[in-house]
Amino acid sequence: MRMLINVPETVVADALRGVAAAHPELKVDVARRLVVRRDAPVAGKVGLVSGGGSGHEPLHAGFVGPGMLSAACPGEVFTSPVPDQMVRAAAAVDSGAGVLFVVKNYTGDVLNFEMAAELADEEGIRVERVLVNDDVAVRDSLYTAGRRGTGATLFVEKLAGAAAESGAPLEHVAAVARRVNDCSRSFGVALSACTTPAKGSPTFDLPPGELELGIGIHGEPGRERRGMMTSREIADYTVDTVLEDLQPRGPVLVLVNGMGATPLLELYGFNAEVQRVLAERGVVAARTLVGNYVTSLDMAGVSVTLCSVDEELLALWDAPVQTPALRWGR
Amino acid sequence: MRMLINVPETVVADALRGVAAAHPELKVDVARRLVVRRDAPVAGKVGLVSGGGSGHEPLHAGFVGPGMLSAACPGEVFTSPVPDQMVRAAAAVDSGAGVLFVVKNYTGDVLNFEMAAELADEEGIRVERVLVNDDVAVRDSLYTAGRRGTGATLFVEKLAGAAAESGAPLEHVAAVARRVNDCSRSFGVALSACTTPAKGSPTFDLPPGELELGIGIHGEPGRERRGMMTSREIADYTVDTVLEDLQPRGPVLVLVNGMGATPLLELYGFNAEVQRVLAERGVVAARTLVGNYVTSLDMAGVSVTLCSVDEELLALWDAPVQTPALRWGR
Repeated sequence: MRMLINVPETVVADALRGVAAAHPELKVDVARRLVVRRDAPVAGKVGLVSGGGSGHEPLHAGFVGPGMLSAACPGEVFTSPVPDQMVRAAAAVDSGAGVLFVVKNYTGDVLNFEMAAELADEEGIRVERVLVNDDVAVRDSLYTAGRRGTGATLFVEKLAGAAAESGAPLEHVAAVARRVNDCSRSFGVALSACTTPAKGSPTFDLPPGELELGIGIHGEPGRERRGMMTSREIADYTVDTVLEDLQPRGPVLVLVNGMGATPLLELYGFNAEVQRVLAERGVVAARTLVGNYVTSLDMAGVSVTLCSVDEELLALWDAPVQTPALRWGR
Repeated sequence: MRMLINVPETVVADALRGVAAAHPELKVDVARRLVVRRDAPVAGKVGLVSGGGSGHEPLHAGFVGPGMLSAACPGEVFTSPVPDQMVRAAAAVDSGAGVLFVVKNYTGDVLNFEMAAELADEEGIRVERVLVNDDVAVRDSLYTAGRRGTGATLFVEKLAGAAAESGAPLEHVAAVARRVNDCSRSFGVALSACTTPAKGSPTFDLPPGELELGIGIHGEPGRERRGMMTSREIADYTVDTVLEDLQPRGPVLVLVNGMGATPLLELYGFNAEVQRVLAERGVVAARTLVGNYVTSLDMAGVSVTLCSVDEELLALWDAPVQTPALRWGR
């Protein structure tokens, strides 16, 4: 076990204490497992709440701040947060304008956010939910009915967050979020398995020299296993698989996302190949983001998410954002 | 070999093509291995140039932009850039106000930046150099006479970059850089070795369940090897070692820096322990940065850098910065 931890049982609480110390611009409730932007609730603004199992950082707590999420509810590692966290988050960020729950399509998350929406409704908080299910690799998986939610979560949270920040009403913010999800597709590749603190050994066996195509963010099995491929070959396979499903008619946002342990040097090199394939297919990359954003602990690998955008969505992408992991504009 | 590459020979050029595609705000010369802020040279502003072996990303190319570096010269993986790159970088960013070279203390870097300074001088460019040598782990190492340059490079580049952006003259920018280096100390711990593309296997042998204390950023041997320690124990050892050497009399900047493959969840948990030790020793953490900034490819591990600051240095830290890896303010 090569982990920088005390004991597996305190990993999430320890991390939240560390977030609190590094980010005074966030309110962190370690006991209740909540990360909330300090100025919440913002008068007249729709609240954006997301959450999910820990181990995918900076998703979601790293995306809390002006222009993106109002609050995040971290669960235990690879385990859904509970409805109580979600209801408290909704109450903490609701200004009366309502709250949007951004839910990745994993069974536990879906059920718990559904229950939380009902409980919030009983407390007089208007809640809408949007399901993120962008992963084209598999139809059903270990933790999901239907497609998994992966990299598109970043696009949904950024673009709907910008819409909320601009003062748009709940119905419009929810519509933006659903449109972003509908316009986004992802595909991921693992070069190594990840190791959870509780298990202490790799979640699946992937011999050196092999890779798993179509991996999920919890080490769920992918589509197929192959012998090692070059960056060029992986980009061809990945981008073509996404494009085949997405069929973009205009420009796209590109996320080249590291799974956690792949060096930035390699991610940027892979991005060069992704851009080559897009250019060969006549697809314009309007904006490109490269880095470790939707991770799977110490997994080596990469995922590509494309999001078809029109001028409205592109303007929402360019709008200012001030979070620990994504920051630009004023 | 678990790498997302084409062939080892093109890793750096491939990455630079990927940087160019993702960051239109930078000028990237792939053939000449240069990354320059797009608006350089900025009239009246001192230019800041750094560089070193690749494999430590986002250092240095990820720190190019307003408020930090004017240009970066990436060498091959773990190999110094050549004087020609450095002279070209100096020429590209010199507005007539002169150029500061920020040099990590590795023999190749030191010699090549020295030669580049002489060549630049012949071209009529005023150059000052500052040596970064913050690593308290070892006196001499595989690649160094004296202390190695590691995490403090980020502080030197940020604070001297802010001074340059404010219009300070070359002598003042160089003095700030030297003062930041003098006020900074680092110590790093490896939980696994890194793997270079050329070698394709770990650079040293570190069995699971052991860790190396006092590691460098190229897999240089450390002070000692021990059986696995908890996050709490590693923080005690690391912070006390740094404090013993630094003896800060006031507040400090804190960098909790991942070596590349340690999940953000663990880095934040470790930060909680770092903050605990600092509080126990009566040291005030004025600002804290947590993330993978000065890395060693896919090495698992962490380093801690502390920088003693007064009000001037703290204001330089808070000044706006707009680079791929560090962004805040306007």
